[in-house]
Parts: sequence; structure tokens; C-alpha cells
Amino acid sequence: MKYGLIGGGPGSFIAGVHRAAIDMTRAADLVAGCFSRKAEKNRTAASSLGVAFDRIYASYSEMAEREAAREDGIDFVVVATPNSTHYTMSRAFLEQGIDVSCDKPLCFTVDEALDLVRTARDKGLFFMVTYAYTGYPLVRHARELVRSGQLGDVRVVIAEYPQDWLADRVEDQGNVQAQWRTDPAQAGISCCVGDIGTHVENMVHFVTGLEIEKISATLTTFVKGRPLEDNALIAIKYKGGAVGHYWPSQVAIGRENGLAFRVYGTEASLEWEQETPDVLKFTKKGHPLTILTRGGPGLGPEATRWTRLPAGHPDGLFAAWANIYEAYCNSLKNKIRKKTCDEPEVFPTVADGARGVKFVHDCVKSNRADSAWVDAAAPVL
Amino acid sequence: MKYGLIGGGPGSFIAGVHRAAIDMTRAADLVAGCFSRKAEKNRTAASSLGVAFDRIYASYSEMAEREAAREDGIDFVVVATPNSTHYTMSRAFLEQGIDVSCDKPLCFTVDEALDLVRTARDKGLFFMVTYAYTGYPLVRHARELVRSGQLGDVRVVIAEYPQDWLADRVEDQGNVQAQWRTDPAQAGISCCVGDIGTHVENMVHFVTGLEIEKISATLTTFVKGRPLEDNALIAIKYKGGAVGHYWPSQVAIGRENGLAFRVYGTEASLEWEQETPDVLKFTKKGHPLTILTRGGPGLGPEATRWTRLPAGHPDGLFAAWANIYEAYCNSLKNKIRKKTCDEPEVFPTVADGARGVKFVHDCVKSNRADSAWVDAAAPVL
Amino acid sequence: MKYGLIGGGPGSFIAGVHRAAIDMTRAADLVAGCFSRKAEKNRTAASSLGVAFDRIYASYSEMAEREAAREDGIDFVVVATPNSTHYTMSRAFLEQGIDVSCDKPLCFTVDEALDLVRTARDKGLFFMVTYAYTGYPLVRHARELVRSGQLGDVRVVIAEYPQDWLADRVEDQGNVQAQWRTDPAQAGISCCVGDIGTHVENMVHFVTGLEIEKISATLTTFVKGRPLEDNALIAIKYKGGAVGHYWPSQVAIGRENGLAFRVYGTEASLEWEQETPDVLKFTKKGHPLTILTRGGPGLGPEATRWTRLPAGHPDGLFAAWANIYEAYCNSLKNKIRKKTCDEPEVFPTVADGARGVKFVHDCVKSNRADSAWVDAAAPVL
Amino acid sequence: MKYGLIGGGPGSFIAGVHRAAIDMTRAADLVAGCFSRKAEKNRTAASSLGVAFDRIYASYSEMAEREAAREDGIDFVVVATPNSTHYTMSRAFLEQGIDVSCDKPLCFTVDEALDLVRTARDKGLFFMVTYAYTGYPLVRHARELVRSGQLGDVRVVIAEYPQDWLADRVEDQGNVQAQWRTDPAQAGISCCVGDIGTHVENMVHFVTGLEIEKISATLTTFVKGRPLEDNALIAIKYKGGAVGHYWPSQVAIGRENGLAFRVYGTEASLEWEQETPDVLKFTKKGHPLTILTRGGPGLGPEATRWTRLPAGHPDGLFAAWANIYEAYCNSLKNKIRKKTCDEPEVFPTVADGARGVKFVHDCVKSNRADSAWVDAAAPVL
Repeated sequence: MKYGLIGGGPGSFIAGVHRAAIDMTRAADLVAGCFSRKAEKNRTAASSLGVAFDRIYASYSEMAEREAAREDGIDFVVVATPNSTHYTMSRAFLEQGIDVSCDKPLCFTVDEALDLVRTARDKGLFFMVTYAYTGYPLVRHARELVRSGQLGDVRVVIAEYPQDWLADRVEDQGNVQAQWRTDPAQAGISCCVGDIGTHVENMVHFVTGLEIEKISATLTTFVKGRPLEDNALIAIKYKGGAVGHYWPSQVAIGRENGLAFRVYGTEASLEWEQETPDVLKFTKKGHPLTILTRGGPGLGPEATRWTRLPAGHPDGLFAAWANIYEAYCNSLKNKIRKKTCDEPEVFPTVADGARGVKFVHDCVKSNRADSAWVDAAAPVL
Repeated sequence: MKYGLIGGGPGSFIAGVHRAAIDMTRAADLVAGCFSRKAEKNRTAASSLGVAFDRIYASYSEMAEREAAREDGIDFVVVATPNSTHYTMSRAFLEQGIDVSCDKPLCFTVDEALDLVRTARDKGLFFMVTYAYTGYPLVRHARELVRSGQLGDVRVVIAEYPQDWLADRVEDQGNVQAQWRTDPAQAGISCCVGDIGTHVENMVHFVTGLEIEKISATLTTFVKGRPLEDNALIAIKYKGGAVGHYWPSQVAIGRENGLAFRVYGTEASLEWEQETPDVLKFTKKGHPLTILTRGGPGLGPEATRWTRLPAGHPDGLFAAWANIYEAYCNSLKNKIRKKTCDEPEVFPTVADGARGVKFVHDCVKSNRADSAWVDAAAPVL
Repeated sequence: MKYGLIGGGPGSFIAGVHRAAIDMTRAADLVAGCFSRKAEKNRTAASSLGVAFDRIYASYSEMAEREAAREDGIDFVVVATPNSTHYTMSRAFLEQGIDVSCDKPLCFTVDEALDLVRTARDKGLFFMVTYAYTGYPLVRHARELVRSGQLGDVRVVIAEYPQDWLADRVEDQGNVQAQWRTDPAQAGISCCVGDIGTHVENMVHFVTGLEIEKISATLTTFVKGRPLEDNALIAIKYKGGAVGHYWPSQVAIGRENGLAFRVYGTEASLEWEQETPDVLKFTKKGHPLTILTRGGPGLGPEATRWTRLPAGHPDGLFAAWANIYEAYCNSLKNKIRKKTCDEPEVFPTVADGARGVKFVHDCVKSNRADSAWVDAAAPVL
Repeated sequence: MKYGLIGGGPGSFIAGVHRAAIDMTRAADLVAGCFSRKAEKNRTAASSLGVAFDRIYASYSEMAEREAAREDGIDFVVVATPNSTHYTMSRAFLEQGIDVSCDKPLCFTVDEALDLVRTARDKGLFFMVTYAYTGYPLVRHARELVRSGQLGDVRVVIAEYPQDWLADRVEDQGNVQAQWRTDPAQAGISCCVGDIGTHVENMVHFVTGLEIEKISATLTTFVKGRPLEDNALIAIKYKGGAVGHYWPSQVAIGRENGLAFRVYGTEASLEWEQETPDVLKFTKKGHPLTILTRGGPGLGPEATRWTRLPAGHPDGLFAAWANIYEAYCNSLKNKIRKKTCDEPEVFPTVADGARGVKFVHDCVKSNRADSAWVDAAAPVL
């Protein structure tokens, strides 16, 4: 297949992760792009990426139109630009009938999110939102354990995502990412929940399938003068009676990317941490803890399928990204072949993106009401 | 010194821990007791414990009176009986001018608790409530790190106490402790918060000195038919702006006695877990994590003082109990010598016990109001 | 029962561990002693330990004779004095028909060791050598796993005991223990192997039952001017074809009391570390790793029996010592009752002590021959 | 740059790792190949890899000649074929003046190895042997710590590489890799040492720079009927007085790819494990353990340079491979530009490969002499 890229000019970071992941799958080649708004940078990037000059575009809208018009146009587009542009860019490609893979967060408002969900659905397009942590094999195994009933009914979820990179006022010290993450104009109504709280929400939903019913959120800005929160304590009541605590933080000194979840059910429990992604702790009631490892004994076909290196050889986050791209590309290929959107493989979708946007808004709403409990059902999609 | 014991008849458990701890300190000898309400069991216990028959008592009240009247009466009494008896027994000894060491929870109501606090204070008596986890040397070092300002201002506290022994309806299967812990008549208004949530509350207060301002608690009874909660999710707003999440649970499959806290300040963070008590993780801002170990380098005099075995030789929970008893007995000796209650050593006091009782009530109050936020300042003592 | 103590005067350390352990068992009372060669210190110690003055002795020989002559004499003696005195003291009590518990190493020469073995056997006495690490419940479970065949045939053993307290020339800086440990006159022919290599040897033998056939040892003195070795690399060929590596070290910076073993069999493997004694890692072939914990599920009666605190509450090294003393005291009681030495409970014996002495000598012999392989069968007992 | 590939036909594994790593560096494109000896498979592979049909070759010798003759010929070749072919293939490309990257082990005999070293040197060619574990950023930091003197003089090295995939006779159950690894005709004189012992040797040499002086090796075949060893215990005396224990094993049940080293010096120690490659434990004398993490504080420029993802996001083994390829490709580019072989970047070279071959032979030699100590100086290169 062939894909195009929005973003990824000199100096960018995340676009390179998309590219490395797609390279690893060997499922698609980069053939078109709008890498930078500056013509020279656009050409420089194209050269280094091996993209022909007649497939470089000055704007995303031109790119969407012209690629859609070509017989050999791109099969999908990767949107790897700042958050504020996701909605309009993604929508432009959907309009042209081009499948989309977009960074998270999906967009700024719930209405925008629902619009993207509906547009993709109406047009029969696959829209991936790159919650890539769900590509780790043991996360997929965790999900299988819950779905197959081995945990019984889930009772309690404890999940978190501590970081420390915003523990000080680094936005005043030239940290560009800190500048836009803490700027409401660019980041939207939330910093900590929007950036990493959504990963917690997505991960828990992916693994457990639980639906949130009520939220009480305490968003705190610990670094003075910062307009958005840098820490969140979120209490959850799920439909059906389970309860949960989420803790995303950007001021937790000593913590790097500590996304982690623990799920306790009536029959078993499991624990996973992103920084050691090849380990899943699983305890059946009345039995000792077992340590499941990627590629090791005791796993099912889902975990095995997404394993790129033998047990004991860390395949890392690049492989997790590659896994969601492989599922996405397989789904696209299948759609092209069978002419149906039914039964795509498992990848994080625009619906997951919309769920995340709604979650951010509900947390902010609760916080503004002195952390009161608010109804927080996910959007009906 | 000499002490007496209420409880500890054949088949009891916790009284033996008190005794082993006091033995380890070599600070006091057991000379009197009311070990059981049954005369024969009382004598059997006395025999095996080396207590003279003329110092066995049929009731706690008789014991309090007669020991107080003796020239060579006990210096303090250990109350190691079921919760519902703590208040009246402790009060009887205080009335007679005898210092008291009592199991937690201190009592059932805040009024009772405040009464005990005032009585002890008015009479110049030392009243220890055996929150023994505060005796671990690295917990004491953690406290010193906070007090000496090395953490800066505390921003976030994440603390928990997961267990799994009540994950099923074991109270119907002959588990005696489960029977009374889940019975409101014997355990009071709370099971999970009362038993282990109070340890979380006490530990966080001991280490950080933070005062709770507001609480939102979600108490859940996951095991059907159980009249008291077996899981609690508690959100805290402290005075001064810090926030916290506490999670005590008795249904967390695979967890044993997972009391743990993590404290994040403006300058550093620390983490500690009760199941590996000789390790304290400490990270200064901008530096890598350091692993402090009991007896190892980098500790201060407080940690060193309470270390009973060389580094790398686990001294365990018995030693933690011995530590609080050593601090208590030293304080008593000092009081006797100097005739003043000023400057006792650090041990968990009746005020800590009262704080715990208030915490339980505030959690229950919030939960009954659909987890609404309630004012939850500790009692003025 | 009643016991006497040699050593344990003011300032001593290890005698206090013996006492705390025996106290924890409640199996015996200290009634006699020769605590110090200085009369005043002897009396001071007796006072603080509650020993009557007529049971204090100026010499071990006097004590042995007079206690043996008393109707109510001690049931056993604890020898907690420097190494060079173990042989003569232990022998004196054996001669008088008194059972003995002695610190390790047992003595200096293999002949002495064999003499003690034979004397104890001939007189029907129980002689414990306090390899107390074998008292940890999960070490006992490890032994049961091997004995019950769950490991199949053992193939490889990797064991070690790294410490760092001799990484510098602390014997010149007033460290008394370093002075005698590194002094051949007081420590014998070996420092590192004698002190901690013997623990490795004993632990591996206790758990696996393997018999050493050949040894190649490289003993190194890394700290200049020290007359005895401070590090040892020992390769082992066991009878039956298994092989092993032992590494005791006193110069391993950052390590405290890192006694650890890993045993790999044809059917399963296990790993244990002294610094986290309540955890045993067990992996059956083709299955994921399971983490067994003291007091937790999946253990047998032997581990359960020696557990003094519930799962998740560390009972520490004091409890391990208490366990070997409980097994020893039970054996003594049984001997007194049944008048037979048959079927004592499991405690480390004088035969284990002799095995250790032989091991030290074989390591030194190999090292003196440029680390050549030497025949190193354990002494026939 | 442009590269060619020998091996990597349908069903192969390791060639894909080479390709993914080179892709990640974006330093070179695959333009030529001899992917399989079967013409059809050769074409199938070329198609899927995007290699033009006129750059497919029926034999490595034809490829070497014709690529050398082209103006736009490959800059280097990747040899990813079974061990027995490494020597002749690599040599053919060197002869034609083409730089080589070859899998380990380099070849079968020390003479072959030395011939390759000299040929590469004489022709001014860069020859990488893909000991890719040396590409992990924290391994490079460990090396810097030793080289900068922070460890002082190294005293003791404990290193190992336990696996369990050959714990049973899987070569009889259709495991193709097991078949050739245990077959002397294809694997040479050693299975366990040749395959993974060499990684231990290379890693220790890379990090510490220590030169081996003497070896005593015990190679054991635990699985009956297997002609080569599946476990090795190797004792080392290094030049200068340091000592070491190496333990590679293929029968260590429960272990996956447990390459690990611990290095103890006069001033500090460090520990690293391949399965958690982003963590390096570092302890300075008299200080607590610090946990260094990839991307985290406290690292130097070398570790920072080779970091592809932010701290806390595992970049895994693919990134380690990419790192050695990036160093290799940078060196090639620099050579082309400056016309000198001086000062290449750090990658594992043919000299390291030769050192590994010599190590295998010395281990086998010692083992055949009943594990006697043999002189084992690395080859003079």
C-alpha cells in the first residue's frame, strides 16, 4: 500500500515514530506528503524521505484533493501535526474518501469528535487514532484474559500515568513541547488529562471494556502561573458497579512514562506497566502470582501473534506502534479486497478518540464544580 | 519495668506479637494479666507465660484497681482484646493512673476517642495505639526526609493497602476473624476502612504531617450479603493544597499486606512498601532514583537508631513493633525519672487513634452522601 | 527448658540474636551463663538478663561441670564466642553430657570437627550449628520441592553471597570484627570462605542434598596487605554430574548480605535471595514463573509450619533463628520424653558444621595449587 | 548509502532484524541480494523487499564480483546466513573491496578469524560482527563509567546468559534452529559457548576492557545424546588480577535471554540485564544504589546519543541493532568522505569476532583437559 504524511518536517519527532513503525510492518510505502508549511523544508524532508517532488504538497487540502484524484493515490494518510489541526485535516481527507491515521488527542470538542466518527462511518473509512500502547502484546493478552472471563467480573481498577517533565516551569526555559502543552490555545482545555489521562482512560477501556458512569476529578495546577492542570486525581464509578482510581501526573518527580494498570476481578487480577511492557502479572484466586512474559509460556494466540522478537528480547514501543499499524493496514487491505468494512482487526479507532475527548471534558466539568460527581457516560456512537 | 496484659489467652494471635516485641526490647516483664474470661484458660495462660497466680485477674476492672493499689504494680497495661472493648478497658486503667498500650482501632466513636485523649492528657499518662508500621526504620527516615525539607512542599500522595483475604464469603466458611470484621456489632460502622484504611491514614499523616481537609469516599461491598464495605476509594484534599488518593481493599486478589505510600513533593519524591520494608526509594529532582536500605549508606540518625540487624538482614515486623514499644517504654522510664510528660519519644499515640476514628466516620459519611465531598478536618485535640 | 549462655557480655551482638530467637520460641529460659571473662561484666550482664548470681561462672569449664552436677542444670548451652574457642568450649559441655548450640564456623580443623561429630553421636547429644538461614520458611519449602522430585534431577546450581564491608582496609580503621575476621590467628585459614562461603555451601547442600565431588577455587585478596582472602570464585562438580558456581565476596560494593541460590533441574527451577526471604521463584518446565510467598497459596506443610506472621508481614531473620531453635528445642524435649535421639526435627547439625570446615580446607587447598581441581568429598560422618 | 544482503529468504528471521535496524537508521537502502539459493525464492524475496531483479544474484561470489564492478555498487554487504558460510562469504566481499557486516560467530577456526581480521585491515575495510547487545545505550554508558575511572580498578566480574530453549531434546521435535545449533557439522565445536557464551565474553570485554589470561571451563551436555554442550561454567583470570565467572546455559528452565553482567571495582559497581536494558544499577562506594535509566538524569553524552525514544518508553533490541548500524554506517560515510579508516565510531568489529572464536576454542580446550586452567590470551591482532 501507499501512504501520505502530514507533518514530519525537519525537527519533528512523532512523525518519525509513525514512519519507523510502518517501515517495520513493511505494509506501506511513503509516497506523498505535506511535511512543512515552508516550501524549502517541505522539499528537504521529501528528499530525505525518498518522496518524489510531484507528490509534495503546499497544503493538506491540496494534498487531499489531488491524491484522491490520482489513480495511484495514497491508500491512507498519517496526520502527525499539532493537536489544534487534527480535526480539519482529518476531515479533509475523510471528505475525499481517504482513510486516516491521526495522532491523539483526536480533536478539541465532543461535537468535532462525533462529527469525525460519523463521517468515517458514513463513508466506510477506517480512522485510526494512535493510542499505540494498546499494541503491546501483553496488553492484548490482558484484554483477552478479561474477555474470556478469566478475571470474572471486574471490581476495581487502579490506573495511573505519572511523569515528571513538568515538575518545574520548563515552559519558560525553552522547552517547546512544554510551551504548547500548557497553552490552552494549542492544547485545549486540559494539559495533563488531555495528554496522558486519555491514555489511562483508553487503556482501561481497551483492556476491561468497562463503561464509565460517573466521574469526580480534581485537577490541580501545582506549578504557579501555569494556566492548565499538571496533575489529576480522578475517581470513577463504572456501569455495573466497578470502581476505579486514575492518576495522571506531570509533576511526579522520578517518574518517566509510568502508565500502569491493575485490574481486580472476582476470579483473578492482573497488573501491567508500560516501562516493562513484556511482563504481565496474573493471579488467579487461591493461586500464587504468575509472571507472564511476551513470547513465553501460558499466553494465547493474540499475544503470540503480535510478538516480533523471541521471549527475553525486548521489542519495545516501536513494535507496539508497528502492531497497531499492521492491524490497521491489514484491515485496509481486507476492505479493498472484500469491499467491506466488516470485521476489521483490532486497532484504536476514531470512536476511541471521541471517547477520550469526552473524558477530558467530563473531568474538566467535574473539577470546575469543586470535584463534584458528574454523569460521564461515553458518547453514543 | 513491669506490664500487664488483657487478652492473649490460648488461641489468640496479636497478643503474642505484643509480647514478642516487648521481649525484644528487654524493657519490661509481663507480671500480671487477665488473659481470658474463663478461669481455667486464665490460669493456663498464666502458667505458660510465667505469671504468678496472685497476679491473674477475673476482670479488667479488678486488675486495674488492684494493680494500681500495689506498691509493685504494673507500669503499663497492654490491651489486646476485640475492638468493642478497647474504650472501656483503656479508660478503666487510665482512671487508675496506669499508662496504656492499646490495639487499633482505638474505639468506635469520635466522642469516645476524644474522651480517651483528654483523660490521658489530664492524668499525664502515655497512651500508645499500636500503629506498628510506623516503627519501621525506613518509615522513620521517610518522615525525617519530609520534616527536614528534602521533599519541599508535598503535592501528591498516593497510598494504598490492598489485601485479598475477604475476596470471597469466608465469613461463612468458619473464618473467625472474617466473622467479626464484617459484623457491625463487633467491628463498628466500617470493615475495610476501619481495619486497614486507618493504617493508610495514619502512615501518610506520620510521614508527611499533612492534615486532611476534605474527603470523598466510595465504599463498596463487593461480596454479596456482607453488611460492611470490603473496598474503599478515597480522594483527599489536604490543607495547603496537596491532594491524595487512598485505596484500602480486602478483595484485591493476589495482594497480601500491600500497605504502600508514594509522596511527591516540589523537590523530591519517595516510595515505600510494607512488604519490603527495608527499602526506601528516593528521587531528588533532576537526579536518578536512589535505593536507600535499612542499615545502608545515606541514612540519618533516626533510621540508624531503630535498626536491630545489619544491612541486608531483614529484621521484619517484630522489630517494628519492638521499636514502637522501645520508644514507649523509654518515654515511660523518662517520665518516671524526670516526673514530666514532656518530650516523649516518637510512638503512635491516642491522638493518632482518635484521628483514625474520625477518618473512618468521615469516609462513611461521604459514602452515605453518594461519595460527596465532606469536610473532614481531624479532631482538635 | 533451661539454657545457659557462653558469651553475650556488654557490647556483644550475636548472643542477643540467639536470645531473641529463643525468647520468640518461648521454649527455654536463660538461667546460667559465663558472659564475660571479667567478673564485673559477668555480673552486669547477669543482672540485665535476669540470671541469678549463683548461676554465673568464671569459666566455661566450671560452668560445664557445675551445671552438669545440678539436679536442675541447664538443658543446653549456647556457645556465642569467637571462632577460636568453639571447639574446646563445645567439647567441654559435650563431655559433661550437655547438648550444645554453637555459632558457625564450628571449629578450625577437620579433625576437630570430626571429633565433635563423633563425641556428640557417642553421647547421644544434639549439637546444633547455627546456620540460621536454613530456618527461613521458603528455604524449607525449596528443600521440599527438591526432595519431592518437583525439580527432577538438579543440573546446575548458581549460588553467591556478596557483601561489601571489607572493600576497604577497615581493619585499620577500628572495625573490630574486620580485625579478627582478617587475622589468621583468630579466623583460621580463610576469611571470606570461612565466614560466608560456608553459608553458601550449607544452603546449597540443605536445599539440594547434592554432594560435592571436586572443587576449583580461586581465592583473592583484593585489599592490599590483608593476610586472608576477601573474595572467592569456586567451581564445583557434584556427584552425579551436576555442576555449580559459588561466589562469596566481601568486596562487592553495594551488596549487603546477598546470599542467594538458583537451582536448575530437569523439570523445574527455583531462585531465592536472603534479602527478600519471603519470596521463592519457581518455574516448572513449559510454564510461566510463579512467585511463591511465605504464608501464601501453593506452599506445603513445611513452609506453613514455620510461618510466624501472616502473608505479607515480613517475619525476618529473627524468626528464621527462632525456627531453628524451635526445631532444636522440640527435638530436645522429645529426646527427654522418649529417651531416644531418633527422628529429631530439622535443624543444622554438627555434621553440617563439619562439612563446612572441610569445604573451607578444600577451597584453600585448591587455591594453593593455582586453583587446580581437588577431590573434595565431604567427610564421612 | 546502498547495501546488499546474503540470506533473508522466505522463512528466515535474523535478516529481518538487520533490515529493520538499517531502516530505523535511514542510513542505507537495500538494493541487491542473494536471498536464497533457489531462484524462485530469490525472486519472491526480491519482490517483497523492493529489490530490482537485475540486482538479484544466484551466488554470493557472483554478487561480490558484479556489485564491485558497478559504478553504483553496494557500499556494504550484510551476511545473514548460517555460521558455516560466514568465512567464505565475508572473504569474497572483502576480496572485492566491499565492506562487510556479518552475523556472529564470525567463523569456525582462529586461523580463519585472523585471516579475516588481516584482510579487512590490509584493504582498509570496515568489518562489523553484529554483537548487537553492545548497541544498548546503557551498555555504552557502563563502558564509559569504567573507561572514565569511576569504577576504579575492576576486581570481579560475574556474567551470565541463561536460556532454557534446549532444556529438552527439541532437536528431535522439529525445532530447526535446535537441529543445527546442536550439530557439530553446522555449529562447529561448541553449541552453548559458541552461541551465547561469546555474547558474555564480548559484553564483558566491551564494558570493562579486561583481557583474559587463563580459563577453566566445564562444558556439560545435560540432554542425553546431544553431541555438543548445553551448559558452561567458565572461571576466568584476567590480566592484572581481576577474576570472573561466566555462566552461559541453554537448559536453565524459566530463563529466556538472560544476558547479564555485574562488575565490581575498587570505587564502584554496576549491574545490567539484557531483559530490562534501559536500567543500569550503579553504586559508588559508601553511597546508596542509584538506578540509571535510559534518557534519565545522570547519564553522559554517549548514552544520550544512542537514545531513540524518551525516558520511560522502551526502545528495545531493534534500537540496539540500529545503533550499531548507525555507528557502522557513519564510519563508512566518514571513510568515503575523508578517505581514511581512522577513528571509526564504536561498533563491534571483526577483531571482536576473532576474540570470540578464540574464546570458544579455549573453553573447549580446557574442558577436554578435565576443566584444567589453560592459557587463553586473546589473539594478537
